[in-house]
Amino acid sequence: MWPTSSHPRAFHERRQRLVARFPGPVLLPAGSSRPRNFPANRYAFRAESHFLYFVGRGVEDAALLVTDGTATLFAPEPDPEAAVWTGPTPSLEQLSEQLGLEVRPLAELSPPPNTATLPPQDLPSAFWLAELLGRDLEAGDGANLEGVDAGLADAIVDVRLRHDAAAIAQLEQAAVVTVAAHRAGMARTRPGLREAAVRAAMEAEIIAQGMTTSYGSIVTVHGEVLHNERHDGLLGPGDLVLADVGAETPEGWAGDVTRTWPVSGRFLSEQRELYELVLAAQRAAIDAVRPGVRYLDVHRTAGRVLVSGLTELGILRGEVEELLQRGAGALFFPHGIGHLLGLDVHDMEDLGDRAGYAPGRERSDRPGDRYLRLDRDLEPGMVVTIEPGFYRIERILERAEEVGELEDALRRDVLGKYASVRGIRIEDDVLVTDGAARVLTDALPKTADEIEALVGA
Amino acid sequence: MWPTSSHPRAFHERRQRLVARFPGPVLLPAGSSRPRNFPANRYAFRAESHFLYFVGRGVEDAALLVTDGTATLFAPEPDPEAAVWTGPTPSLEQLSEQLGLEVRPLAELSPPPNTATLPPQDLPSAFWLAELLGRDLEAGDGANLEGVDAGLADAIVDVRLRHDAAAIAQLEQAAVVTVAAHRAGMARTRPGLREAAVRAAMEAEIIAQGMTTSYGSIVTVHGEVLHNERHDGLLGPGDLVLADVGAETPEGWAGDVTRTWPVSGRFLSEQRELYELVLAAQRAAIDAVRPGVRYLDVHRTAGRVLVSGLTELGILRGEVEELLQRGAGALFFPHGIGHLLGLDVHDMEDLGDRAGYAPGRERSDRPGDRYLRLDRDLEPGMVVTIEPGFYRIERILERAEEVGELEDALRRDVLGKYASVRGIRIEDDVLVTDGAARVLTDALPKTADEIEALVGA
Repeated sequence: MWPTSSHPRAFHERRQRLVARFPGPVLLPAGSSRPRNFPANRYAFRAESHFLYFVGRGVEDAALLVTDGTATLFAPEPDPEAAVWTGPTPSLEQLSEQLGLEVRPLAELSPPPNTATLPPQDLPSAFWLAELLGRDLEAGDGANLEGVDAGLADAIVDVRLRHDAAAIAQLEQAAVVTVAAHRAGMARTRPGLREAAVRAAMEAEIIAQGMTTSYGSIVTVHGEVLHNERHDGLLGPGDLVLADVGAETPEGWAGDVTRTWPVSGRFLSEQRELYELVLAAQRAAIDAVRPGVRYLDVHRTAGRVLVSGLTELGILRGEVEELLQRGAGALFFPHGIGHLLGLDVHDMEDLGDRAGYAPGRERSDRPGDRYLRLDRDLEPGMVVTIEPGFYRIERILERAEEVGELEDALRRDVLGKYASVRGIRIEDDVLVTDGAARVLTDALPKTADEIEALVGA
Repeated sequence: MWPTSSHPRAFHERRQRLVARFPGPVLLPAGSSRPRNFPANRYAFRAESHFLYFVGRGVEDAALLVTDGTATLFAPEPDPEAAVWTGPTPSLEQLSEQLGLEVRPLAELSPPPNTATLPPQDLPSAFWLAELLGRDLEAGDGANLEGVDAGLADAIVDVRLRHDAAAIAQLEQAAVVTVAAHRAGMARTRPGLREAAVRAAMEAEIIAQGMTTSYGSIVTVHGEVLHNERHDGLLGPGDLVLADVGAETPEGWAGDVTRTWPVSGRFLSEQRELYELVLAAQRAAIDAVRPGVRYLDVHRTAGRVLVSGLTELGILRGEVEELLQRGAGALFFPHGIGHLLGLDVHDMEDLGDRAGYAPGRERSDRPGDRYLRLDRDLEPGMVVTIEPGFYRIERILERAEEVGELEDALRRDVLGKYASVRGIRIEDDVLVTDGAARVLTDALPKTADEIEALVGA
């Protein structure tokens, strides 16, 4: 598939929803591309998500002003001298027509007093904005907002939390390509290759379909390293590959999927036992995704299935509810069950926990809950990931002070039998609807048998 | 091939060469990774090239201090809490052993007065450095240096201009993978695909071999757009694909190669005529690459072959030397014949023209010469690209004020017969040696017949 764009009307309606919630003047910067090793060699430009949400296209160094209910894009005028290098770029008039939005030269931008904004990620844009607005502004500091900016953030969170039809269509496109990438990765897998070969097959699928990765790909035989950035490991015949890879559409919408598969194409029996346990936890969590359900309870549902299964396998001993109370889930599943998904892979995380945590809720400091990025009551239109895992993490399990009072519950002799498992995670992207949750990435198989049929094929 | 690292001795020797040329204290920052759409979602870190040159590995937020002839790396201490997320990271002691260099905690860094430095590309690192040194410093502003910094830049240019054996070994590795990428791109090409499919095949080869792209890939049927960043075009059966794609080794060394091939696997006869002309210009330029030769003359050699060929084809009319004097080459070949290649695809361009232009030489303002990035007398150990091209650029050819006095020399009727050619470029990476130049990328075929055999195969 080749990605399709949303209709300009979708962005017009989003801007109207913003105005309805936040009447005051608003200025949203697109941001600037970042230099890599010298000023002219730059990373691919990716606009600020709040800008993309209301404009639909990254226009470098532009800014959207919404004032008195009217939206105007202020954009740099194309440099005719640059045409030899970059090809014809649309004039501001053409841009206006394409975006369905008034476009004016950037030099005319003069925001009214008390204009609210959200800090961009890059320092040069933050400087420019601070000077324009005549007040301090720290790049990337959306977690600490005050005054009108805090009010704007609340309004935007409210608008962006529940996805409209155009957003869901974009997330569906990201899901299609993300699924294709995982299929390609499974097909490419064989013993003796490097992790990088599998990563290449997956990212090639994404690049070929006009998209980009929505975050740094994790493709590793060391799934126990949760944010593993290395790709130089060799695929051993008894290893599991954990691949956490997602596609991003040109409008900026993200996919985020994890699968874990055996290099040889066959799970060892201990690997299969734990794989099926993680899968059962994932299914139970997805089944729990319904409007009105608190996401923390979805997280706990997965934890309960995991701990219960681990007692059945004999890795943990004790009574399930008591083990859960004592935080036994965190020994093997230290991260959260998932997060919001949208224009950002952790949607609106630039605003800290303002989007992920409902007003009045705060992060717990319990080991199994402290990394949970989302604790809201679910509503139709939200998209969340559901991604339980099982990991044997040395840093946790081999240090008495980490295991603490759970030492008596942990049967290290039994755990030793599962040495062929380092990390398993199964992750899908799930849309909350009025009825049962809809798994946007359900075209990607996940039972052990289905996975085996795809590896090396 | 999987990339191999240089021996720590190579970096020790480079630091000694620096000390021999610049005894004063020197501080070289590694730089910081750049945030993408939220603070935790970052572009892949790529250290400053000057840091990589003397250290050999990107250590984020570290800095190399060379004072009194002794080099010390100051690096952030690994956070044990982060181990769950990032896996075990080497202690400073282990890092020291791996790098063959004393490593101290970053907090102990206290540079002596009058320490010279070069500005990093990212603003946060530039701020940190400015505060540490107690003076102004502008990110990415290496083109405007004064005082000790200017002296340091001259010394580093002198050290980095001629590549040592370790550097050449790295450039050879980058060349091998770059060549493989181009072969993969040719093989993947067929009518009806998007440019992105070819790009994906090329970048997959680079990713699979543990490397990254050294610059944003150009893969386009609109080769006349010199820095084309789009990849959504359809490959028409009569189109030429221009692909300018290079691999970068983990130590940061770049490949930079361009090939142009017919989508159908067969050049049309007009395409072949112009292709062979560009190839003749490239060969003449490579033949001219010898120690002591001024690079501007290499550029002019290519221009002469092109203009002479264009008169033979009837596209230009007039006497060749006179046409060259009048700048006729720039009508179809507006950019320079190439540039330095090393850790940067335009090596040391962060220092403006300090590396590319020998002292006393300046950029010409002549149309055909003004974009020339290099004008030095060549020396053994330099690596340069040789990349002539032929482009039909609307912005140039269709505007009377651009063509100017050359209107009488331009036979638009004849040019019209070559409408199937929009852009052709042929680029290789060339090492200056004591004898004939060595083409590092010569494993990649480039005659029209050879190219035809590889497309779609």
